[in-house]
Amino acid sequence: MDIIIIGFGTIGKGLAEVLYKKREYLKKNFGEFRVVGIADSSGAIYNKEGIDLKKAIDVKEKTKKIINYNDAEKLSIFELIEKEADVAVEVTPSNLETGEPAKTHIIESFKNDKHVVTANKGPLALFYNELIKTAEKYNKIFRFEATVGGAMPIINLAKENLAGNEILSIRGILNGTTNYILTKMEEENVDFETALKEAQELGYAESNPSQDIDGLDTAAKIVILANSIMNLNKTIKDVKIKGITKITPESLFLANKKGYTIKLIGEVNKKYLIVEPMLIPKYSPLNVKGTLNVAMFETDLAKEVVVVGRGAGKEETNSALLSDLISIYNRVNNSTK
Amino acid sequence: MDIIIIGFGTIGKGLAEVLYKKREYLKKNFGEFRVVGIADSSGAIYNKEGIDLKKAIDVKEKTKKIINYNDAEKLSIFELIEKEADVAVEVTPSNLETGEPAKTHIIESFKNDKHVVTANKGPLALFYNELIKTAEKYNKIFRFEATVGGAMPIINLAKENLAGNEILSIRGILNGTTNYILTKMEEENVDFETALKEAQELGYAESNPSQDIDGLDTAAKIVILANSIMNLNKTIKDVKIKGITKITPESLFLANKKGYTIKLIGEVNKKYLIVEPMLIPKYSPLNVKGTLNVAMFETDLAKEVVVVGRGAGKEETNSALLSDLISIYNRVNNSTK
Repeated sequence: MDIIIIGFGTIGKGLAEVLYKKREYLKKNFGEFRVVGIADSSGAIYNKEGIDLKKAIDVKEKTKKIINYNDAEKLSIFELIEKEADVAVEVTPSNLETGEPAKTHIIESFKNDKHVVTANKGPLALFYNELIKTAEKYNKIFRFEATVGGAMPIINLAKENLAGNEILSIRGILNGTTNYILTKMEEENVDFETALKEAQELGYAESNPSQDIDGLDTAAKIVILANSIMNLNKTIKDVKIKGITKITPESLFLANKKGYTIKLIGEVNKKYLIVEPMLIPKYSPLNVKGTLNVAMFETDLAKEVVVVGRGAGKEETNSALLSDLISIYNRVNNSTK
Repeated sequence: MDIIIIGFGTIGKGLAEVLYKKREYLKKNFGEFRVVGIADSSGAIYNKEGIDLKKAIDVKEKTKKIINYNDAEKLSIFELIEKEADVAVEVTPSNLETGEPAKTHIIESFKNDKHVVTANKGPLALFYNELIKTAEKYNKIFRFEATVGGAMPIINLAKENLAGNEILSIRGILNGTTNYILTKMEEENVDFETALKEAQELGYAESNPSQDIDGLDTAAKIVILANSIMNLNKTIKDVKIKGITKITPESLFLANKKGYTIKLIGEVNKKYLIVEPMLIPKYSPLNVKGTLNVAMFETDLAKEVVVVGRGAGKEETNSALLSDLISIYNRVNNSTK
């Protein structure tokens, strides 16, 4: 299966690393996953015989620009999207205001006869229906497990493993940064600013952490779940959002005394979408610590199903991208596996 | 998609009920799932235009014998397996000593050009490789999510949502009966016999509970996970098994004092397969209560992933059967969903 990777930052390069490291394993268990094109902000490269991933990673790390890779045709991102390949992996930085440039990359990929896998929340939180309809129109597969919960299976879990169930609600912790901060505040009795600073030092929070701590990141994920799993037609504007900046160590202490903890919970049901700090019983499966993510589905047949996993991290996100690529491979090759 | 149901007890009849209740929902979201044949110990019925499920359920409940259903050809189970249909659902009672009659039903179904979905642990715990090879030989899909963990996604979760990950180990609570008993003993300080009796009265334990409390049921499930997820080649004889009959309220009390609980854990890794009561930290995600099941995967990319769900129950088991049927439907119809 021939792949182009659009976006070659932490995630895109991480995917190349995983595809390189696991090439024997993948070939033995599934088939050949060949990267024929890579794009970053410097431009794009294409070689229909395959890109040497080790060399591409090396060039990117040393020169910051994939365009410095030799042994390939140099072209623009959109020229790359027009080239022959089976799947486009869209992993440019996420923009929750415009969804671009990812949205255009995805749409153009469908139009140019490519299945799409993405980790990009922006276009899905803003233009879900348009993207799905375009995929359907061109009869292409569109998968985006990595957009929510990192390595924690959630979208495909609900759509496939729980297929046939009606999903009545989904609630959970979908942002590892805020969970890290709240866990820290609770366990070490420190205030919000101190916990945030430590999260930033450890690389768990960005230098501008507002999308995480204000709840926007969780809201985008809740919208993706609402649309993809519950067939609602929502955007971020439909979510009532409240972040964690007002939470104090005292409120956590008081909650604790009564057998509760406080978590930033995203929830979607048939009536509303909400993101806010909620009291959670200490023994609830939703009380997971550190940077972990968790989701609880309420369904008609299976009743409650809970899943816990790592919400972020380079390898963890690539676990989701890779499972989506393998799913497409099996589907395209009509595997009975 | 045309289905035959082999076995029309709690599970088989439950599946018919779900397919009947959800017929509009399934048709709208996926396609038509038509039952054309049903077999129980009285014999089999077949109608290529479809069985009236409401009537079939009614006949079974009133007369105990599906053979009393009119409007269909009456035949033997093996004659039914030879008839035209896309999928056979094998849900006769499980036998952990011989795997029969399910094993033969499954093999014959593959030979007669049918995909197979089963909830039957016996044949999979005893003859995994033979069954898989037969499915491959006849190019048929074989799915068995319902054999382990009921409505808790586990087999397909590991093989699909975590595809590309190497699964290093799996450990968890795979038997709701023993979890109910241990939870009861811990929370109400009652002895094993008392807790077992209550579990029996509530229908959580069978009148002969030995397969559950001696660990054999968990062992069969661990073998299925070892073979299907970790590509090992094991049978029940490879599992070191210890049940929960020796656990006392005192041992639970002492464990509790130190911050632990005791659970019957099944575990498989590359070195061994084991089922035994283990000390679990109270705050571990493995400490789930009542009849819940839980599994923790350790993987190379996604690291730890935990899933919690209901391990038993008529609707819960049918959640797993139904998701397997839908997966086959989508595959056969080359859906891009």
